[in-house]
Amino acid sequence: MAILCLLHQAYGKKLIGAIREALPDEDIREWPEVGAPGDIDICMIFRMQPGFLKPYDNLKLISATGAGVDHYLLDPEFPRHLPLVRIVDRSFAARMADYVTSWVMFHHRDIAHYLEAQKRHEWAFRVMRPAAEVTVGVMGLGQMGALTAARLAAIGYDVRGWSRNPHEIDGVTCFSGEAGLRPFLEKTEILINLLPLTPQTRGILSSGTFAQMPKGGVLISAGRGGHMIEADITAALDGGQLRAATIDAFLTEPLPPDHPFWDQPGLYVTPHCSSTASLETTVEGFAENVRRFRAGQPLQNLVDYEQGY
Amino acid sequence: MAILCLLHQAYGKKLIGAIREALPDEDIREWPEVGAPGDIDICMIFRMQPGFLKPYDNLKLISATGAGVDHYLLDPEFPRHLPLVRIVDRSFAARMADYVTSWVMFHHRDIAHYLEAQKRHEWAFRVMRPAAEVTVGVMGLGQMGALTAARLAAIGYDVRGWSRNPHEIDGVTCFSGEAGLRPFLEKTEILINLLPLTPQTRGILSSGTFAQMPKGGVLISAGRGGHMIEADITAALDGGQLRAATIDAFLTEPLPPDHPFWDQPGLYVTPHCSSTASLETTVEGFAENVRRFRAGQPLQNLVDYEQGY
Repeated sequence: MAILCLLHQAYGKKLIGAIREALPDEDIREWPEVGAPGDIDICMIFRMQPGFLKPYDNLKLISATGAGVDHYLLDPEFPRHLPLVRIVDRSFAARMADYVTSWVMFHHRDIAHYLEAQKRHEWAFRVMRPAAEVTVGVMGLGQMGALTAARLAAIGYDVRGWSRNPHEIDGVTCFSGEAGLRPFLEKTEILINLLPLTPQTRGILSSGTFAQMPKGGVLISAGRGGHMIEADITAALDGGQLRAATIDAFLTEPLPPDHPFWDQPGLYVTPHCSSTASLETTVEGFAENVRRFRAGQPLQNLVDYEQGY
Repeated sequence: MAILCLLHQAYGKKLIGAIREALPDEDIREWPEVGAPGDIDICMIFRMQPGFLKPYDNLKLISATGAGVDHYLLDPEFPRHLPLVRIVDRSFAARMADYVTSWVMFHHRDIAHYLEAQKRHEWAFRVMRPAAEVTVGVMGLGQMGALTAARLAAIGYDVRGWSRNPHEIDGVTCFSGEAGLRPFLEKTEILINLLPLTPQTRGILSSGTFAQMPKGGVLISAGRGGHMIEADITAALDGGQLRAATIDAFLTEPLPPDHPFWDQPGLYVTPHCSSTASLETTVEGFAENVRRFRAGQPLQNLVDYEQGY
């Protein structure tokens, strides 16, 4: 019995150290120092190549290091007979809401206009609309989307939400299903993508979707690269259907230095920084599931392979 | 009996047109087409030179066009025996809260870092603290400050407030008076100035104040130019006591093109755009006070010359 960890480099040696401290009785190995593959019965994996898990014949539990698990589910060789758990916590959702809110306000208050004017030493006064007059639409009403929508409503925005299944959130007008998409989009000036990546949502950020929004809208995508038709984003910005977009997740990460998105006018690239679980929550969530697994108790934050999250 | 208007140019001819429409029975004159000065008994003035009101012997009521009235009170020739009213409305405070919140989040989430990295096509990942771990301090807890503090608390920030007189705001730790300033500042990472400009608050944004904050803090001033010791702002940014500042109001406006603030690293200049009363609210508020004045009824939003607001 041993635990294999392949972790996000952003935490350096801190995360593995904290996991070892939280689980002092476990044999914890950090990839690539695996030892005998047959020893490994639990693993915690940040990202992996397809087939990465094949050598581990005795694997019984897999943990993600964050909330998103689509990259595991898209691997045809992923061992779907094993339980997959993820890290879900209030701070994770709160950080995502921070990210989204900061960019909603950046675009609503047109901070880019003032940054540009300052370079020219130009006093470029504009009258700003209050948040109550700005309609923001949140796609995806899971823990992250629901908290983000509620927070935008608390700030005073006119907030609508859309999700596969019906939801109710105080102060948010909710739409659902395929039939709800058009009425959701038709007044959405700032569109936020917090959907899980599933076969149904792949490619949803397309010209067809943008065309249903009022002209000159804004896109903020903190979902996955697979939600986007990249050429459609560029075309919508060039044609003015979108006046700006902030994108945090891409088909290839890090975004290659020669990718056209870097220099696209109106497009703001962020390096998948929208949210990370805190080190503390990641360690606690993982350690708790390891203890539950060893004790034969029900696991927390178990992924439903059918739903895809 | 006639009304003289000298209005903010940002609204062009719209504002005077709307005032005439709201008060169809009044003789409304737009400066400089005054006619006989003795006709004028009410005036609505955006900004004015000292002594501007001297020719108007029959003046009985003066209205500001916004919330701030310090520029009237600082005029030694201002006719303090006359009632002075101002425009105060929920949308005004809401827009101010929008402005402050947008810049708090800009600095908290370090959007400038990502904008710079994008120019270099650089994937510059950083872990961000959740809002709950960031302490924001609001100086001035009038209508604008109180709403701003409450909204920042709703977003999840650790919020403290400071004002001359004690206040209570849900979710906000409030300090007051001279004795409360040091404990208020000692944990404030992002300092927001929404104070009225009075003899007590003039020059409050000084090295002495910044030195009481944790090193590397942020200043957001949407108060008045007179709150700042300009050289101290520059010194605090150069020395790292402040890592950034956003300033919306200056001693001279528009800020002259050769002012050193434009090129100061870490300083973000905005053109007094933090909040404007909406055209609708300005017209309604002013028309209501004109009607009340003509009918001999108590005025709304009357300025207390002692308090200075």
